Amino acid sequence: MDEKNSSHVLDALSDRRELVNHNLTAHIKSINPKSLHQASNHLFLAGGKRLRPIVCLIAAEAICNMESSSFPYEGVLDLEGSPVNMLDAASSLELIHIFTLIHDDIMDDDDLRRGVPSVHKKFSTNDAILAGDVLHSKAFETLGNSAKPSSNLSSALASLAHVCSGICEGQALDVQFGNMDLVPIEEYLKMIELKTGVLFAVSSSLPAQILGQPKEVVDSLYSFGLLAGKAFQIYDDLLDLTTPSSILGKQRGSDIAEQKQTILTIHASNAGVDLAPFLKNGESIPNELNMDELVQILEDSGTISYAYELSQDLCTQAKRQLEILPHSPSRELLSDIVDFFCQRDH
Amino acid sequence: MDEKNSSHVLDALSDRRELVNHNLTAHIKSINPKSLHQASNHLFLAGGKRLRPIVCLIAAEAICNMESSSFPYEGVLDLEGSPVNMLDAASSLELIHIFTLIHDDIMDDDDLRRGVPSVHKKFSTNDAILAGDVLHSKAFETLGNSAKPSSNLSSALASLAHVCSGICEGQALDVQFGNMDLVPIEEYLKMIELKTGVLFAVSSSLPAQILGQPKEVVDSLYSFGLLAGKAFQIYDDLLDLTTPSSILGKQRGSDIAEQKQTILTIHASNAGVDLAPFLKNGESIPNELNMDELVQILEDSGTISYAYELSQDLCTQAKRQLEILPHSPSRELLSDIVDFFCQRDH
Repeated sequence: MDEKNSSHVLDALSDRRELVNHNLTAHIKSINPKSLHQASNHLFLAGGKRLRPIVCLIAAEAICNMESSSFPYEGVLDLEGSPVNMLDAASSLELIHIFTLIHDDIMDDDDLRRGVPSVHKKFSTNDAILAGDVLHSKAFETLGNSAKPSSNLSSALASLAHVCSGICEGQALDVQFGNMDLVPIEEYLKMIELKTGVLFAVSSSLPAQILGQPKEVVDSLYSFGLLAGKAFQIYDDLLDLTTPSSILGKQRGSDIAEQKQTILTIHASNAGVDLAPFLKNGESIPNELNMDELVQILEDSGTISYAYELSQDLCTQAKRQLEILPHSPSRELLSDIVDFFCQRDH
Repeated sequence: MDEKNSSHVLDALSDRRELVNHNLTAHIKSINPKSLHQASNHLFLAGGKRLRPIVCLIAAEAICNMESSSFPYEGVLDLEGSPVNMLDAASSLELIHIFTLIHDDIMDDDDLRRGVPSVHKKFSTNDAILAGDVLHSKAFETLGNSAKPSSNLSSALASLAHVCSGICEGQALDVQFGNMDLVPIEEYLKMIELKTGVLFAVSSSLPAQILGQPKEVVDSLYSFGLLAGKAFQIYDDLLDLTTPSSILGKQRGSDIAEQKQTILTIHASNAGVDLAPFLKNGESIPNELNMDELVQILEDSGTISYAYELSQDLCTQAKRQLEILPHSPSRELLSDIVDFFCQRDH
């Protein structure tokens, strides 16, 4: 993607991020007592791309074929003429995302997230468990209040619930993979589908579902998000190795060094690459030179091109799903966002 | 309540418990992978009264004015003639209850629950966090699939979500009270309303909501559960001190010994009673004689009669809410259950 196009995507994200942040602030503010509010608010305040709610908003614009400047985010009319607060619906997705980050950080005992201490480090494990729990409930509450009670809203709530069960199952698989020598690639792809894909899928399809669009529109948008989410995750696995450490904010290649299962380690192992020299060994962490060498080895083994092509292929498949919508600037934007995230340098 | 009446209540609970357990087994069985299923299933297998789903089922029978023997639990017709699987709706309440028990046990670092090791002791804290999370999502999924999408179902889902946020807030207050010298009695009552009352409230009112009953019926049944739930909790506080240790399965008076805030400790402190001689001190745990002495002191201070009368008064108020329903054996049963739980010896 050239620079002009990427600045257009960044501007579009930034405009909508402001709307989402404003809406999320109000929902998180409603959490009491103060101690629970603070723990729940901590990661939200630390920033974040808000990609899931933004994708939801842009999908709503594309469905209605309306420009962002005139789009009634807080009162989008469904097919029966009832208003839907699409910002509330979008916020519910970020509340789920933050809940999963807080609990995942406890499970992985990660100290930092978004450049600040993780919730269980800043507060306590108990505070982090409860903060995750209340954000989890609050997501359903927020979505449940985004429109008048309706059959469409009940379908949307059931979809979100199904997806949340899937995210937990994906996390359980990820934990399980940590104890396995070799994970079959299709099982890894299933895990990222659950852990990352399904929340993007529901983010893209939620507006169609709440607005009462035909099933084929809901299904295509669900597939769009699922494929795009998997593409993002695979591209992220790749960036962990190829992005300069200074930009990544941590040693590049740390996924491999810490023996995390990623698309790269699985492909490389299948191709007979010995990753042992690049693993963290006590306090000795692989350096930049080691990583340059590893990149070369993984280029030779076809691992890097495999991961790159898989991500690009998923992107192409994702974008094809958008053809069910009328041509519009917002439909183009959804397509550009997928390209942007799967062609970025870091 | 005389013996005849209490055996009638026990039989009624037992019949419906079997239906609920059968339904819950299927929902929990759907959780994957195996490790997550096992951790999620552990407390369910350990037993439990299933009081919340049972109250839900009996409320449904009372609304429809049908005998249990002919009641179509898996296909109750709503006011528009659409079938509702009331067992699924009921199960969602127990899934929420089990999720809160699992996470509360981590927070309180309790070793035992229902006579077996708590989930985080039997498995690990990470397993217990994730098991609670998946049961939390599964509850919304189960309720969301209990009927065809409808405005009534979307209201029921939103109510459950609101209640779950409240339960988290109640738990946060309970944790906060652990660090306070003196908790005002109205704040304690608010805490138990959130931590215990609201889930009973939604358990009683959910059938009316899904079946599309008028708002005043939903509201009265909500109040019934809220008042009954508070009555149960206060009566439980009392039983902790007055039930023989052999029946309680732990030293009676342990709430007081461990300085938990309960209605008894708060009233006693307000009445100027010095509880210091009865607190756990290192390994030295108060014995039966100490507890007999404490009961005498709390009888003299009016604490025991205060808690007893408060629970009975809440019961009476709860039962009055049932008058909105037609006379029926199931309505009587709801009333008898409240009496049973607030007059039992242990």
